[in-house]
Amino acid sequence: MRVGILGASGYVGGELLRILLFHPKVEVTCVTSKRHVGEYIHHVHSNLKGLTELKFIEHNPEEISDKCDLIFSSFPHGLSVKVLPDYIERGMKIIDLSADFRLKNPEDYKKWYGYEHPHPELIEKFVYGIPELHREDIKRSSLIANPGCMAIASILALAPLVKSNVIDKSRMIVDAKIGSSGAGGAPSLSTHHAIRFGVIRPYKPVNHRHTAEIEQELNQIAKDNVRIAMSAHAVNVVRGILSTCHLFTLKPITISDLWKIYRGFYQKEPFIRFVKDKKGLYKLPDPKILIGSNYCDIGFEVDEHVNRIVIFSAIDNLMKGAAGNAVQNMNIMLNIDEKTSLQMPGLHPV
Amino acid sequence: MRVGILGASGYVGGELLRILLFHPKVEVTCVTSKRHVGEYIHHVHSNLKGLTELKFIEHNPEEISDKCDLIFSSFPHGLSVKVLPDYIERGMKIIDLSADFRLKNPEDYKKWYGYEHPHPELIEKFVYGIPELHREDIKRSSLIANPGCMAIASILALAPLVKSNVIDKSRMIVDAKIGSSGAGGAPSLSTHHAIRFGVIRPYKPVNHRHTAEIEQELNQIAKDNVRIAMSAHAVNVVRGILSTCHLFTLKPITISDLWKIYRGFYQKEPFIRFVKDKKGLYKLPDPKILIGSNYCDIGFEVDEHVNRIVIFSAIDNLMKGAAGNAVQNMNIMLNIDEKTSLQMPGLHPV
Amino acid sequence: MRVGILGASGYVGGELLRILLFHPKVEVTCVTSKRHVGEYIHHVHSNLKGLTELKFIEHNPEEISDKCDLIFSSFPHGLSVKVLPDYIERGMKIIDLSADFRLKNPEDYKKWYGYEHPHPELIEKFVYGIPELHREDIKRSSLIANPGCMAIASILALAPLVKSNVIDKSRMIVDAKIGSSGAGGAPSLSTHHAIRFGVIRPYKPVNHRHTAEIEQELNQIAKDNVRIAMSAHAVNVVRGILSTCHLFTLKPITISDLWKIYRGFYQKEPFIRFVKDKKGLYKLPDPKILIGSNYCDIGFEVDEHVNRIVIFSAIDNLMKGAAGNAVQNMNIMLNIDEKTSLQMPGLHPV
Amino acid sequence: MRVGILGASGYVGGELLRILLFHPKVEVTCVTSKRHVGEYIHHVHSNLKGLTELKFIEHNPEEISDKCDLIFSSFPHGLSVKVLPDYIERGMKIIDLSADFRLKNPEDYKKWYGYEHPHPELIEKFVYGIPELHREDIKRSSLIANPGCMAIASILALAPLVKSNVIDKSRMIVDAKIGSSGAGGAPSLSTHHAIRFGVIRPYKPVNHRHTAEIEQELNQIAKDNVRIAMSAHAVNVVRGILSTCHLFTLKPITISDLWKIYRGFYQKEPFIRFVKDKKGLYKLPDPKILIGSNYCDIGFEVDEHVNRIVIFSAIDNLMKGAAGNAVQNMNIMLNIDEKTSLQMPGLHPV
Repeated sequence: MRVGILGASGYVGGELLRILLFHPKVEVTCVTSKRHVGEYIHHVHSNLKGLTELKFIEHNPEEISDKCDLIFSSFPHGLSVKVLPDYIERGMKIIDLSADFRLKNPEDYKKWYGYEHPHPELIEKFVYGIPELHREDIKRSSLIANPGCMAIASILALAPLVKSNVIDKSRMIVDAKIGSSGAGGAPSLSTHHAIRFGVIRPYKPVNHRHTAEIEQELNQIAKDNVRIAMSAHAVNVVRGILSTCHLFTLKPITISDLWKIYRGFYQKEPFIRFVKDKKGLYKLPDPKILIGSNYCDIGFEVDEHVNRIVIFSAIDNLMKGAAGNAVQNMNIMLNIDEKTSLQMPGLHPV
Repeated sequence: MRVGILGASGYVGGELLRILLFHPKVEVTCVTSKRHVGEYIHHVHSNLKGLTELKFIEHNPEEISDKCDLIFSSFPHGLSVKVLPDYIERGMKIIDLSADFRLKNPEDYKKWYGYEHPHPELIEKFVYGIPELHREDIKRSSLIANPGCMAIASILALAPLVKSNVIDKSRMIVDAKIGSSGAGGAPSLSTHHAIRFGVIRPYKPVNHRHTAEIEQELNQIAKDNVRIAMSAHAVNVVRGILSTCHLFTLKPITISDLWKIYRGFYQKEPFIRFVKDKKGLYKLPDPKILIGSNYCDIGFEVDEHVNRIVIFSAIDNLMKGAAGNAVQNMNIMLNIDEKTSLQMPGLHPV
Repeated sequence: MRVGILGASGYVGGELLRILLFHPKVEVTCVTSKRHVGEYIHHVHSNLKGLTELKFIEHNPEEISDKCDLIFSSFPHGLSVKVLPDYIERGMKIIDLSADFRLKNPEDYKKWYGYEHPHPELIEKFVYGIPELHREDIKRSSLIANPGCMAIASILALAPLVKSNVIDKSRMIVDAKIGSSGAGGAPSLSTHHAIRFGVIRPYKPVNHRHTAEIEQELNQIAKDNVRIAMSAHAVNVVRGILSTCHLFTLKPITISDLWKIYRGFYQKEPFIRFVKDKKGLYKLPDPKILIGSNYCDIGFEVDEHVNRIVIFSAIDNLMKGAAGNAVQNMNIMLNIDEKTSLQMPGLHPV
Repeated sequence: MRVGILGASGYVGGELLRILLFHPKVEVTCVTSKRHVGEYIHHVHSNLKGLTELKFIEHNPEEISDKCDLIFSSFPHGLSVKVLPDYIERGMKIIDLSADFRLKNPEDYKKWYGYEHPHPELIEKFVYGIPELHREDIKRSSLIANPGCMAIASILALAPLVKSNVIDKSRMIVDAKIGSSGAGGAPSLSTHHAIRFGVIRPYKPVNHRHTAEIEQELNQIAKDNVRIAMSAHAVNVVRGILSTCHLFTLKPITISDLWKIYRGFYQKEPFIRFVKDKKGLYKLPDPKILIGSNYCDIGFEVDEHVNRIVIFSAIDNLMKGAAGNAVQNMNIMLNIDEKTSLQMPGLHPV
């Protein structure tokens, strides 16, 4: 399978390359970057030095569809939606890492992203790419909308609970903490090291865009109208998301109930791990031990004092939160072992 | 005023010294440390080198009550309660930084701290030392129970709302993030740099002890039974607490309403600042700009999507969360300008 | 004394304000910033919120010389030299934090900074502002060229040795490590948090500009031609410089000799501390304990294995490396206690 | 090949497991840990959760030599030398990660490590395990002494220069910077996060033990008496070493000369990369882009101002500085592709 990456000079592009250059079933044949045309990949992704002689090319759909069978689009939202229809027409397999085809309701793009969706007729063709929820659809589809990083962490944390109907779905708090790589590679005052280092900074206290996809997916599971109250915080790491979800129970619930709900929901999922230990250093999920890996670690606690459940989910935002999950989707689409090229655990300590 | 510090080798002790060595109205005459008897202060608090020739002495109540008029106790909880009655009897002014006299209900010590309070008769003599709530009582008292670091951040964030009766008091979420200095100076596996660096670690997902004092204080204001659902997280900084409070409104509320509630409640408080800006790098509170200062920065947002209010409060856990607030209490007790020796702003950038 | 700050929106400007707003003998009357004209200071320096109602004004020499008796210039090199002659003519006291008047030889500006010095006639009027070397000159002067951050750390480390004539002056290695605030406040790819975090990055392996001032000052002391071989590294902190100097001895030397050399040279210097302990956590200098303070900590070791001396000097680059030292210079010029407003020790832990 | 790891609960043990669990030619059959006997590996190495059901066993040479054909010893120095003779007698292949068999001169153990070597007769049987220098010997040997982390970084940086005879070998400065994982997993005051975070701390200014192995290896190449003047610094990262080497040239040298020297020496080495670029973010080596990888990046600069050469070498101290290099040695011993299981590049950004 010949694979191309559109917009490959960003962090997600680099991470896709890190994974795909070692993938036994695919060959990366095209990588595009407007600013770096003609440059070797390792001039931008210095960690990849010595691993490939590929160079960035301009974005040219004709050439790319000639040379590739599948493309990952790391274009920003708003651009992907303009560029991808051409590839769709050419019958290519596409995994879009932007938000442009995640939301099923065309109205939502206006509300959450501020633009009128130019191709509402294409939206339904895309499968929302969370393998743990839509594996069968992904298998049959050739168009995938890869989820947002905070969205996938939160959906994986909440889906089992929402399905089991034990919580008040109108008051679901998601308090997310994220590293700086989540903000992308473009420098700004707010990401300047002297400013960004050491922060515990609220940055999207309300109206975070990922709310839309979280609610869409959970509504589908709940057959009900869930309400996500999300606030995001920037913390002093580069990679990692911890999503802390505070839920109120409708009736008393035990830890054992939660184990049943979560184990039942996720059974043999290869990239879901439960972290809830009584000893050791990692009694609950922490992205610290997931850096570089595709796992989503999930843990939970019951608060009898206020009829609350707390769910923690941790991911590497560039892996399960972006590139890793995208490759997982690709593997499923290609009908090969889902774990191919994704099995390396996180580094520790790091 | 001659001042002593019991248990002065810890981080709070060091911070008290940093402040008090420059205080124009007091002289530090005694500092105790079991492990460092006879050593110069700067062998433990290396930053203070050159500022004092004081040495650590053993804890000897007779000597200390001879040489001091007021003591700060940085002894751990369980020890303070054993040691302080002697000083109380001697009529000394005391500011206790442990939890031993914070809770008014003697039963609560068993529930939250696991010990039977040996001196329930003394509890009522202590004023819970949040100047913004109990200034008049502090003025008249000579015994102060200085609040817990997460407690003060959360109480200052929530008190105005609780008073104004606009939120559901049975479901108040406090999602706290704290730096490593909050764990004190004793090394352990979980605080080992290679392990603690880069974490976003849940560490008291339920049943955090500070819940007790937060509820006590808010109940008093609410004349009602509030319920705090608190979860704490360790993040990759040394100093700083951000307390993110998620509340559900009973009826629609506007930002302008919140401004009125908060401004009305805090009026001219010297160490409360409101941070809610439309431009600049610090639109909401972040402990990053408070490091070394005694301020508590408070900001808020309204989430119309779920009838939620989010309140953020940020402090330096060693200052407004411990030593700074303790000195503020002392200043009030001594009837001198409350801001004395506490006016330095946070370092920035740092 | 009415004081103005030119180019006050940068990190050094903020630090000057943090110090001067509490200085009992001066009043800050003017602060300029091209980009922030009309804005309150705390919109840029958020840590100063609540401390001043000053606003940034445009740079207008007429107005400024009317309202100020002394100015600090934080303009970048190349701009200071254009702007300051006007103020010199008006007889104002000036402390220039740029490099524009540091080098005595006009040729050196071309060599090290790439521009022809437009006012060579003014250079001699400026005193190179290291109080420990030029206190008497500073006292008598009204024009000060404040040293570069790495320069002052290295000069203070090496001056005693150079004077004592015990080392090979043709092979003096300075291996410097510095935090991100040293790069200033302008964001760029190389200072982007995701990129800058966690580095141990060589960034000026040869030809660092501060070499020129270090050699100038040491030559003067040595009455000889010293050669500095300097390499700088960016490390994962915001503030702080550690300058590690490797020197080769001409004849065997002992630790006791070094103590004599350093004590003899620095006698009662208020901001020089020697850090060379056998116990405790800070046996040698580390900027960690100097954050926010004006100290320069110096320590040393003798390596008998290779006839080497290692000297360590640590400073806070924004304090002794810039704003703090500038205020120290001002205090000396104003003939007031040199330590005024500069006595606060570093924060610890931080 | 059945492989065992002695002392597998430390960071190097964890890293060996991370690599070997995915190695196609070996199976890990035994892992020992005194403190964790009977526990699952992932209770200690939480990142490995889900990858193995192995448990720690007690150190029992009989059992281990039954179940393993090759062992890695991560025992501390002083213990390895006691334990390994038994395995040697049993004819097992051994890769020792301690210092106990690195130094060829038995006297040196007393001088640098403070103990009398109990088995001087065994020393010569061990090959010092730097593949880039001793590949042929490693191939033929079954006993390998894996080098120290700072030693390998420095030797790889200096070997080509020493061989080419262009520098003053009596005055070679190594200024090393290292992350906290280099100090191992045992908590102490000096590694406590609040204390260790943010340091630029000199910690072995003279007499660093790795000096011995660096000189041994370089002497062999130089056929001459080299003198290493080494100083180590702890910086605020977990992984990574940057070794900055300052050398003085005997005669003028150009960058082009250096390219020839280094390229000539290292030709097709799979894990040596040269980093010396005119553009991009990583113009010189920085461990930041090596985290998790087995590369050693080398770069250089010529300082005409002082007849100095600066060489930079960067590694991940747990990989090329320990576990990665050990596996590379194993691959060579087993006569399989040297890069097996070691090809993953560093994470970026991280």
